[in-house]
Amino acid sequence: MSKKYIINNDYNNATGQLDVPSRFLFGPGPSNAHPRVLQQLGMRQVGHLDPAFLKIMQESQELLRYAWQTKNRMTIPVSGTGSAAMEACFANLIEPGDRVLVAVNGYFGLRMIDMAQRYGAEIVQVNKAWGDVFTINELEKAVQEFKPKMLAVVHAETSTGACQPIDGLGKICRDADCLLVVDTVTSLGGVPLFIDDWEIDAAYSGSQKCLSCPPGIAPLTFGDRALEKLMNRKNTVANWYLDLTMVGKYWGSERTYHHTAPINMNYALREALRLVVEEGLAERWERHQKNANTFWDGLEAMGLKCHVPASHRLPSLTTVCVPEGVDAKAVQTHLLHTCNIEIAGGLGELAGKVWRIGLMGYNSREENVLLLLTALEKALSNSQS
Amino acid sequence: MSKKYIINNDYNNATGQLDVPSRFLFGPGPSNAHPRVLQQLGMRQVGHLDPAFLKIMQESQELLRYAWQTKNRMTIPVSGTGSAAMEACFANLIEPGDRVLVAVNGYFGLRMIDMAQRYGAEIVQVNKAWGDVFTINELEKAVQEFKPKMLAVVHAETSTGACQPIDGLGKICRDADCLLVVDTVTSLGGVPLFIDDWEIDAAYSGSQKCLSCPPGIAPLTFGDRALEKLMNRKNTVANWYLDLTMVGKYWGSERTYHHTAPINMNYALREALRLVVEEGLAERWERHQKNANTFWDGLEAMGLKCHVPASHRLPSLTTVCVPEGVDAKAVQTHLLHTCNIEIAGGLGELAGKVWRIGLMGYNSREENVLLLLTALEKALSNSQS
Repeated sequence: MSKKYIINNDYNNATGQLDVPSRFLFGPGPSNAHPRVLQQLGMRQVGHLDPAFLKIMQESQELLRYAWQTKNRMTIPVSGTGSAAMEACFANLIEPGDRVLVAVNGYFGLRMIDMAQRYGAEIVQVNKAWGDVFTINELEKAVQEFKPKMLAVVHAETSTGACQPIDGLGKICRDADCLLVVDTVTSLGGVPLFIDDWEIDAAYSGSQKCLSCPPGIAPLTFGDRALEKLMNRKNTVANWYLDLTMVGKYWGSERTYHHTAPINMNYALREALRLVVEEGLAERWERHQKNANTFWDGLEAMGLKCHVPASHRLPSLTTVCVPEGVDAKAVQTHLLHTCNIEIAGGLGELAGKVWRIGLMGYNSREENVLLLLTALEKALSNSQS
Repeated sequence: MSKKYIINNDYNNATGQLDVPSRFLFGPGPSNAHPRVLQQLGMRQVGHLDPAFLKIMQESQELLRYAWQTKNRMTIPVSGTGSAAMEACFANLIEPGDRVLVAVNGYFGLRMIDMAQRYGAEIVQVNKAWGDVFTINELEKAVQEFKPKMLAVVHAETSTGACQPIDGLGKICRDADCLLVVDTVTSLGGVPLFIDDWEIDAAYSGSQKCLSCPPGIAPLTFGDRALEKLMNRKNTVANWYLDLTMVGKYWGSERTYHHTAPINMNYALREALRLVVEEGLAERWERHQKNANTFWDGLEAMGLKCHVPASHRLPSLTTVCVPEGVDAKAVQTHLLHTCNIEIAGGLGELAGKVWRIGLMGYNSREENVLLLLTALEKALSNSQS
């Protein structure tokens, strides 16, 4: 010990080498990362302005454009988790006093309201029961009635397992001079999604769902109408870290330093997106649907019900109704402790009523469906004995 | 190809397997991660509410407390890079109209002003030339004159290489009912720093400097006076992602979900902090100082001058004056292309005038000093021939 400094050692620092159980992450996310993605995470670093990293940035942007089916120039990974990309949309696209219409049919619609309010939005909302979806017609009427500057919709509600139809909203919003902002956290890479064809103005996602990349980096895309709103703001964006007028200069041709990009998370995302290209988007969506169908058939055979009707049920995330008399939490704990399987309970209105079970990205495989069904059956019979 | 979906494949997705040069990251950060840290990055994931992860969170908090020499309960890693933790301080501790005194002697003081303004602060500032530091007495006078609610100071200015004395400011701020917020991005784990002894109310740092962890996670600590300010706010924190009233419930005993933590970055930070404990803080600080001394002696022997006087020169980051007639950028490019060595140019006022050379964390080793000096000498003779 040095004599120059008096160091307080009164901390409980007796930590051993990192070790964690081998979990099957079948909850609402994070899902298990693809092994190839985990391998790339530990690749040696380069600087955030190194020519080698600038190349990686360009490649990732182009890969993301494919995954999202968009030509949007401003298609980037945000240096945070999905919620940071979500906030980036609201922080950059809302000016104080702007009316924002939020379609709420689950937890993440409520989060949109919380965020939008912090940026001075005047909120109007339409509501549906958790698990239901809005018809295009219903949202059209709301846009016409409230005349908002932004319509915010969740494509894949991770709290309910419902897949909200989006195709058709773009035209309605354009006609009403309103921006269409879509949460695609649990759909990107797992569920059919076309940013350009559906005329979505801004969207965000997470890395840890259907892309099978660890959390800590989050895709975002802005189309021309969103960029126009951003560039014509009267006020500075009320958030420095997520200010896309500055972040955009780092990802654009200027390459101006803003904040240090999370280098290794960018490596991981690039590999995850390469896997999407290798498989092909259509094939990937069909794989998710096929494995979800097998899972749903199995649930039905066990006498279990899904909370969301098949017509708008997400293949990536299923809400399973907890049978009467069953302790939902006890089943989750049993699965975790006996089989290393993580599933989650319900959030908000659905707390205690459903389990949320995800088969996302790399995890959407037949062997996982079989394991999950068998383990669930055993856990249920155990809970009823 | 599936027939069900029409996928646009018109993207330039021909990306090969990830590969990057083996760089020596001797710039202002990121520095090279310790190999053990990179190994842990790729560890299999667990969920963000998994009992195994909750244990890791607790361990990391305790390790961070040691590194920062603080008992602060609210000592956590923020889910973003250092700038996110910086913004977390300002977003949570400023209420609109609060007077904030910023000590500006470099680029990051200016960034503090930019951020604080976005949260409605009334800014007052004191200025010094870039590379100078303030005396405690000068800052005491400014606090007494301006009566701010917060004094924001950069301990280790990454843009100038100056180490600002902090010890003594805490008492002054307490007497004036003012919070002391300190940027420790380039000091934590490399330069003597005592949060509790120096009575610092809030501090933030980065992972990618003296902790030798990749960027993407950022330490933050709030003492009792900062928490009191936070808990007594009249308004909601104007930033959802960084709202510590909510983030604190995930890191506190409630374990309430806020956003999905960046699991693997947390693994990496934990390992980086274990390395700090294994070495010992005092020994680590002394290693940084010893290698910096060798580096400075070598620079002097080559006829090169440091921008900052030895009395307040940072061991972790040295600003070297570019000799007259030498093209700073050309030397950097030469070092990168011939020896894979990254050093950086000056920022802001010092652009073109200095190189910024970091010997941080794992990179602060004698072999690196020798390599750096030899390569620099060769690059300079090359640029003058």
